[in-house]
Amino acid sequence: MRITEIGEFGLIDRVKEAIGPPGAGVVVGIGDDVAVLRARGDKYLLATCDIQVEGIHFLKEAISPYQLGRKAAAINISDIAAMGGLPTYLLVSLALPKETTVEYVDRLYEGLKKETEAAGVQIVGGNMSHSPGVMVDIFLLGEVEAEHLLLRSGARPGDKVLVTGSVGDSGAGLALLLDPTADRTGEEAKQVLKAHLTPTPRLKEGRAIARTRIATSMMDVSDGTVSDMGHICEASGVGVQLWSDALPLSPATRAVAEALGKDPLEWALHSGEDYELIFTAPADKAEKLAALVEEETTTPVTIIGEIIEEGMNLVLPSGESLPLEPGGWDHFRRR
Amino acid sequence: MRITEIGEFGLIDRVKEAIGPPGAGVVVGIGDDVAVLRARGDKYLLATCDIQVEGIHFLKEAISPYQLGRKAAAINISDIAAMGGLPTYLLVSLALPKETTVEYVDRLYEGLKKETEAAGVQIVGGNMSHSPGVMVDIFLLGEVEAEHLLLRSGARPGDKVLVTGSVGDSGAGLALLLDPTADRTGEEAKQVLKAHLTPTPRLKEGRAIARTRIATSMMDVSDGTVSDMGHICEASGVGVQLWSDALPLSPATRAVAEALGKDPLEWALHSGEDYELIFTAPADKAEKLAALVEEETTTPVTIIGEIIEEGMNLVLPSGESLPLEPGGWDHFRRR
Repeated sequence: MRITEIGEFGLIDRVKEAIGPPGAGVVVGIGDDVAVLRARGDKYLLATCDIQVEGIHFLKEAISPYQLGRKAAAINISDIAAMGGLPTYLLVSLALPKETTVEYVDRLYEGLKKETEAAGVQIVGGNMSHSPGVMVDIFLLGEVEAEHLLLRSGARPGDKVLVTGSVGDSGAGLALLLDPTADRTGEEAKQVLKAHLTPTPRLKEGRAIARTRIATSMMDVSDGTVSDMGHICEASGVGVQLWSDALPLSPATRAVAEALGKDPLEWALHSGEDYELIFTAPADKAEKLAALVEEETTTPVTIIGEIIEEGMNLVLPSGESLPLEPGGWDHFRRR
Repeated sequence: MRITEIGEFGLIDRVKEAIGPPGAGVVVGIGDDVAVLRARGDKYLLATCDIQVEGIHFLKEAISPYQLGRKAAAINISDIAAMGGLPTYLLVSLALPKETTVEYVDRLYEGLKKETEAAGVQIVGGNMSHSPGVMVDIFLLGEVEAEHLLLRSGARPGDKVLVTGSVGDSGAGLALLLDPTADRTGEEAKQVLKAHLTPTPRLKEGRAIARTRIATSMMDVSDGTVSDMGHICEASGVGVQLWSDALPLSPATRAVAEALGKDPLEWALHSGEDYELIFTAPADKAEKLAALVEEETTTPVTIIGEIIEEGMNLVLPSGESLPLEPGGWDHFRRR
């Protein structure tokens, strides 16, 4: 059934039913022009938005509507997690071509619901409109205690650089999607495709890191390890050296790289969308912080470099140091 | 200069400079992934979003980027106004084709700034992405004291229906834009084009109405008088009769309708985008409410109908009553 058959308000009613009744804190939820929410005045309010546009961020044939819904929510939850915050309320701005089926929208909201429920987030509103292509724009609110807020700007020379999980998996997944001849049936392929299509926001890890009050800065890896580390360096007025052999590459990413004849380090440094947390901590407390977070969340944490006065360098196992520029891996490769 | 020449981060820096330093209440503003805001816990938090998509909501050749920026902000401010609230913080999700010029973005933000400053709103973040067409998605936060919150659901049989300003002007402006042969140079044409391209959100009127604590329900006229009145009726479980000769049509709209050979009543009932406030009040207090709001804001307020038990009717000067359906003016005309 096409969405034009039930119309905008029919579709909103359907979504309202799928999402279920609003919880505590929601005075007015889905179906109105404005969500009315109980504020909690002793905390900072967090607000973020991130969009997924067909043909730019995703190919409609490469990602299911369920996966798209999950991913659209996850990348915003990741932004709140990277502040040490807790996500609370979500609004969905959905633009759809006229020929979209109601089932497509149903699956998309199933994905949104799956991801938001896992994070304790309530979907409280949004709007729907027509457009030439599918577009999912998510607005997410959150909150954080003042003492747990983690910004980009607190990194200091001598701090260690830490990262959760592994980097490069999403890049490996994207490379598989973009290579029509690639074999996507193996376990490793499935693992990196999952990392790309339904990334897991590091919400409990972000909270655990913030609660220790040891970390000095934090971001999520959305643009790429080097690019996002560059944002921390710029905001903190510092530089960084990353150790190439310390970057946590998963066995799956190494296997996919070998099968495709690619360098997995390139994905780890530059391809982005891993949604891991990258953060800094004083040198004498970095190992303790990593251990505390691993213990609480079971997610591995790796020390991958060090904050320096200025510049961005990649240190190779040989000891050779190569300049890195945000998004400049290609530039680096041409040397 | 094209946006690709300065890139996403260059463009964000430019916007950050144009918007100026963040005010009190903003801990982290433009340039970060997440806005960090001081919450005020004794009020309800309001959250809304509304989008403008090229080719769907606007034609790029018919609206300047400055006007588009103003309108994108105004329609969201209008939603907060219709709750009796005060808008506070705004995030902009902007999607732009690669060939967009930096000047286009500059003008768009000038429009956003003009409209937000007038409403006391701070622009605190957003994101930018590529897309096949221009898309401006606005996420607006606001707040309202619990006792001033006005919903759709409070209308009761016997209540009078009131509206601010005039309805149909935006429809007249749209009709002019869509008619390539129409003369757009006269004063009346300019007035209705302005109503369509840069509508004024009724913020002070919304606050004035809410503060009287007389009104029983309220909405803004975005979809059309009948359609939005239909939302009030549905949420309140009531019906309405509107009096055709009471609908406030501006002299400009009447003049444009005559020039184009159109019926201005059709625009007033169904064309939407007037962003006037439509609200209800007990019969014995409606005139007093209208007078109070007119006195405080100098904006005319007109009583245009009455809440009934069920159904939606248009009462003609002859006394004849015709059924109205939301968006059903065409249906009605075919009778």
